[in-house]
Amino acid sequence: MERIDKRNLTLLTDFYQLTMMNGYLERGNKEETAVFDLFFRQNDMITYSLACGLEQVVEYVLNLNFGEEEIEYLKSLNQFSDKFLNYLKDFKFTGDIYAVPEGTVVFPGEPILTVKAPILQAQLVETAILNIMNFQTLIATKSAKICYSAKGDTVMEFGLRRAQAPDAGIYGARAAVIGGCAVTSNVLAGKMFNIPVAGTHAHSWVMNFKDEYTAFLEYAKTYPNNALLLVDTFDTLNQGVPNAIKVFDYLKENGYKPKGIRLDSGDLAYLSKKARKMLDDAGYPETIICASGDLDEYSINSLKNQGAKIDLWGVGTRLITSADMPALGGVYKLSAIIDKNGVVTPKIKLSNNTAKITNPGIKNIYRVYDNETGKAEADFIYLREEEGTIDTSKPLELIHPTERWKKIKFENYTLRSLQIDVIKNGELVYKLPSLKEIKEYAQKELESFWDEYKRLDRPHIYKVDLSDGLYQLKRDMLEEIRGKHF
Amino acid sequence: MERIDKRNLTLLTDFYQLTMMNGYLERGNKEETAVFDLFFRQNDMITYSLACGLEQVVEYVLNLNFGEEEIEYLKSLNQFSDKFLNYLKDFKFTGDIYAVPEGTVVFPGEPILTVKAPILQAQLVETAILNIMNFQTLIATKSAKICYSAKGDTVMEFGLRRAQAPDAGIYGARAAVIGGCAVTSNVLAGKMFNIPVAGTHAHSWVMNFKDEYTAFLEYAKTYPNNALLLVDTFDTLNQGVPNAIKVFDYLKENGYKPKGIRLDSGDLAYLSKKARKMLDDAGYPETIICASGDLDEYSINSLKNQGAKIDLWGVGTRLITSADMPALGGVYKLSAIIDKNGVVTPKIKLSNNTAKITNPGIKNIYRVYDNETGKAEADFIYLREEEGTIDTSKPLELIHPTERWKKIKFENYTLRSLQIDVIKNGELVYKLPSLKEIKEYAQKELESFWDEYKRLDRPHIYKVDLSDGLYQLKRDMLEEIRGKHF
Repeated sequence: MERIDKRNLTLLTDFYQLTMMNGYLERGNKEETAVFDLFFRQNDMITYSLACGLEQVVEYVLNLNFGEEEIEYLKSLNQFSDKFLNYLKDFKFTGDIYAVPEGTVVFPGEPILTVKAPILQAQLVETAILNIMNFQTLIATKSAKICYSAKGDTVMEFGLRRAQAPDAGIYGARAAVIGGCAVTSNVLAGKMFNIPVAGTHAHSWVMNFKDEYTAFLEYAKTYPNNALLLVDTFDTLNQGVPNAIKVFDYLKENGYKPKGIRLDSGDLAYLSKKARKMLDDAGYPETIICASGDLDEYSINSLKNQGAKIDLWGVGTRLITSADMPALGGVYKLSAIIDKNGVVTPKIKLSNNTAKITNPGIKNIYRVYDNETGKAEADFIYLREEEGTIDTSKPLELIHPTERWKKIKFENYTLRSLQIDVIKNGELVYKLPSLKEIKEYAQKELESFWDEYKRLDRPHIYKVDLSDGLYQLKRDMLEEIRGKHF
Repeated sequence: MERIDKRNLTLLTDFYQLTMMNGYLERGNKEETAVFDLFFRQNDMITYSLACGLEQVVEYVLNLNFGEEEIEYLKSLNQFSDKFLNYLKDFKFTGDIYAVPEGTVVFPGEPILTVKAPILQAQLVETAILNIMNFQTLIATKSAKICYSAKGDTVMEFGLRRAQAPDAGIYGARAAVIGGCAVTSNVLAGKMFNIPVAGTHAHSWVMNFKDEYTAFLEYAKTYPNNALLLVDTFDTLNQGVPNAIKVFDYLKENGYKPKGIRLDSGDLAYLSKKARKMLDDAGYPETIICASGDLDEYSINSLKNQGAKIDLWGVGTRLITSADMPALGGVYKLSAIIDKNGVVTPKIKLSNNTAKITNPGIKNIYRVYDNETGKAEADFIYLREEEGTIDTSKPLELIHPTERWKKIKFENYTLRSLQIDVIKNGELVYKLPSLKEIKEYAQKELESFWDEYKRLDRPHIYKVDLSDGLYQLKRDMLEEIRGKHF
C-alpha cells in the first residue's frame, strides 16, 4: 500500500511499553504470543459506535521500524540493555490483526480489533492503535449522530481551526466523512483522502471592501455560479440579506444562477425563516440557506423541530472535538497467551466493577439478523473455537451476560461474523476499501439498525450477549481466581 | 531553524482561504497588507490561558510552499485561475508576526499573536495558526490548572492513547510540560522535544505471569532501582500491596532501594491512606505512591483535601483532551488594512453581542506590575502608535472597556509590553527558547499572579482594559458605522 503519512511513528508509544518489552526479553518471554482485544467500555453517552481508523492502523503497523535515530535516542535514556537495542534494530511486525471493517456499527465490550503477535510486538503497538482507533471512531460516531439529526440534508465538516492539532483536523475529516458528512473545508484532508472540499468566504472578505454590497458583488463576480454569501458581518436581516438579493439580481441579469447565503451567528431558527421569506419574495426560492456556528446533533434537531429553513449545515468545533465526550475510552486488554508449543491460556482482568471484568480467550462477534426485516437484532461475542458449531436452521437463544433471567429467542435469522482477517504473519491480507466504499458501507450498516437504537433521547440499548462457550469459560475462570485469591 | 515536523502542511487550511486568495488576486487586492489578531473570547471556563504553540507556528509559516503535488491537486478542483496557480508556485511568507512569548499568561480579548502580511498570505495562514495555537494553549492552560491543584507534587502526562490522533499526543505532551508537567509517557514527544519520559508496567505484565507476586518479582529484577509496581490488577489491599511489600523485601535484601507502587482504580483517597500505612508498617516509609485514572484539577484538589497519601500523579485523558472544554475558541480577526501607499485603515467587526465586537487597529498589550509586590495587577490593550506616550512616573488610570464607571488607579507601577517581534519580512528575528526555558518562564509568569486569579472555584476576574487611544478609535468607528447603517 502507498503510505499517506510518511512520518516514522514507531516511537509513538508509552514508555512503559518499551520497559515491558525490555523486561520480557530479559525474563525469557520473547517466544510467547499474546492476544489483545481493543474494545470500548459502556458509557451513558455512547450506545453505538462506528468503528473507524483501521486503514491508519494498517499503515502504522506495516511501517514499524526503529531507525538509527530512534535507537540512539533510546540508548541515551540509559534504561535498556544492549541486547534489547539490538533486537529493535531488526524489529518488524510479524503477527496477525483481525478487525471489524471500518464503518461497522459496534457496541461496548465487543472486540473490534484483535492483535495476535509475539508479546513484545503486541505490547509496542497498544498505544498507537488505541490513539488512532479511539479518535477516528469517536468522530465517525459523532458525525453519524449529527447526520442522523440532519435527516438527509447535506452536512459539511468545518472544524479544522478548532481541531486538537493538525492530525485531528486531517483524520477527523476522514472519520466525519465516513460517519456521513459530504464534504470538508480541510484542503489537506481533501487531497489525502480524495474528499470533496467546500467553502466560500469569511467575514474578513466583507470587512476588506468599502461596504458589504461591494464585497458581495466582487465575490460574486469571481465565482458567479458558486457564491454562497455570508450575510451576518453587520446586520443579517437589515443589511446582509438585502445586499445578497441585490447581488443575486446582478447575477440573474448576467445569466447566472445565484447560489445562496450563509448564516453564522444569531438565532438560526428565526433568521433562517425570515431570510427564506425575503429570498422567496425577491424571486429566489431556489437559493439555499447554509447555517454554521456551534452546531451539533442536538441543535440541528432543535432547529429542525422549530421549522428552521436551513438546507445545508456546516459543523465545526462540536464535531471535530466530539465536544460533549472528547474521548471514547477504548482499551486494549490481554485475552490470551499462547506459549511456544501452541498451548493457549485464556487471560482475564478482574475489577470490583463487574462491567470492567474482561472477556477471556480468542474471540469474534456474531451479529444476528432477522430474515424477514433484514434488521440487526442482537450481537453475541463467541470464542473462535466455537466457529461453525451453531446450526442456524435451529432456534437461537441468547442470554443476558450478567442478568441471566433475560433471554431472547430467534427462529428465522442469519448470523454474520464481524471480524475479518486484516494482517496475517505481518502481511496485509485484506484489500483496503476506498473512503467512498467505506462511507457507503457505513450508511448500509446504520440503516440495518432500527431507529430506536439511533434516536437522541434515551435510545434503546442493543443486546450484546456471550456465547455459551465464552460464558462458561469466563465463569470458570472467575470461580478459579476467586478460590485462589479471596 | 531545524524542522521537527517534516510534513508539507501548506494545504492545512480551509478551502475558503484559497477561494478568497484567488478572489483577491482577481479583484486586484494583491498589494494590500492585512493585519489580523489572534485572540480568545471570554468564556466561563477560562479566566486565564497560557499562550502556547508559537514555535510550531514559526515552523509552519517559514516552511510554507506549494510543491508540484499541491498545485496539481488544486488545479484538479477546477475552481482556480491559472494566474492564481502560477502565483502559488512562488508563494512564500514575506510578512511579519508579533506574538507574546510561549508560556505568557494571557486573557480573553488580548491579541496574543498578530499577523501583518500581504492579504493573500495573511488569509492562507489563518486556519493552521488557529489550529496550532488553540490546541497547545488549551492543553498548557489545563496542565497549569492541574499542576496548581497538585501543589508542587510531580505531575506526569500519560494521555497519548486517548489523545485526538497522533499530533494531539505529541504537541499535547509539549504543551503539558510548558504548563507544569514534569514528564510524559509519550516516547516520540520525549525524543522530539527533549522531555523526560517515564512509565513502568501495565496490567498486562501482571496477567502474563503465573501470579502477581511472580510478575512483580520479575519486573523488579529487571529494574531493581526503578520498579513502580501497579498493585490493582486483582485486589489492591488484600493482594497487590502485600505482594509489592514482599518484592520490596527481596530488593532490600539484595541491596536495592524499593521505589513504590501505583494505584490506577478504586477510591484513591481510601486506598492510598491504607496502602501508605501498610508500606510504612513494613518499613518502607520512603517508597512513593503514584496515582492515575481519570484525574484532573478537580479530583486532585478533592484528593488533597481528603488527605490522600499520593506523591506522584499520572494524568491522562482529561488533560490531553481538556475534557471539560475541548476547544478554546480562538479567533483570527481582521483589524486593519494597509494600502500600497502605506495608508492604514482600521477595521472592526460588529455583533449584536457587545463582547464579540472586535478591537480595531494595530495593537499591543501592556501589563501593569505593582512595584512593591512585583505582581501583575491589570492589562490594557493599546495602539502601537501610542507606544512611548505613557509617562510611568505619573499615576495611571484604567477604565473598564464597557462599564465605564469602573476605574482603577496605579501610582507605583511598571509597564511591560507583551508582544515581541517574531518574524519580520518573512525572516525569523526571534531566538526561539528551548522547552526548558519556556517552562521556566511559564512558571514565573504564573507566580506573578495572585492566587485569587488561579483558584478553581470562581476565580477573581483579571482586569483587561483599553488604552485611551484604542477606546476612542473603537467608539468613533462604532458611531460612524451606526450612523451609516442603522
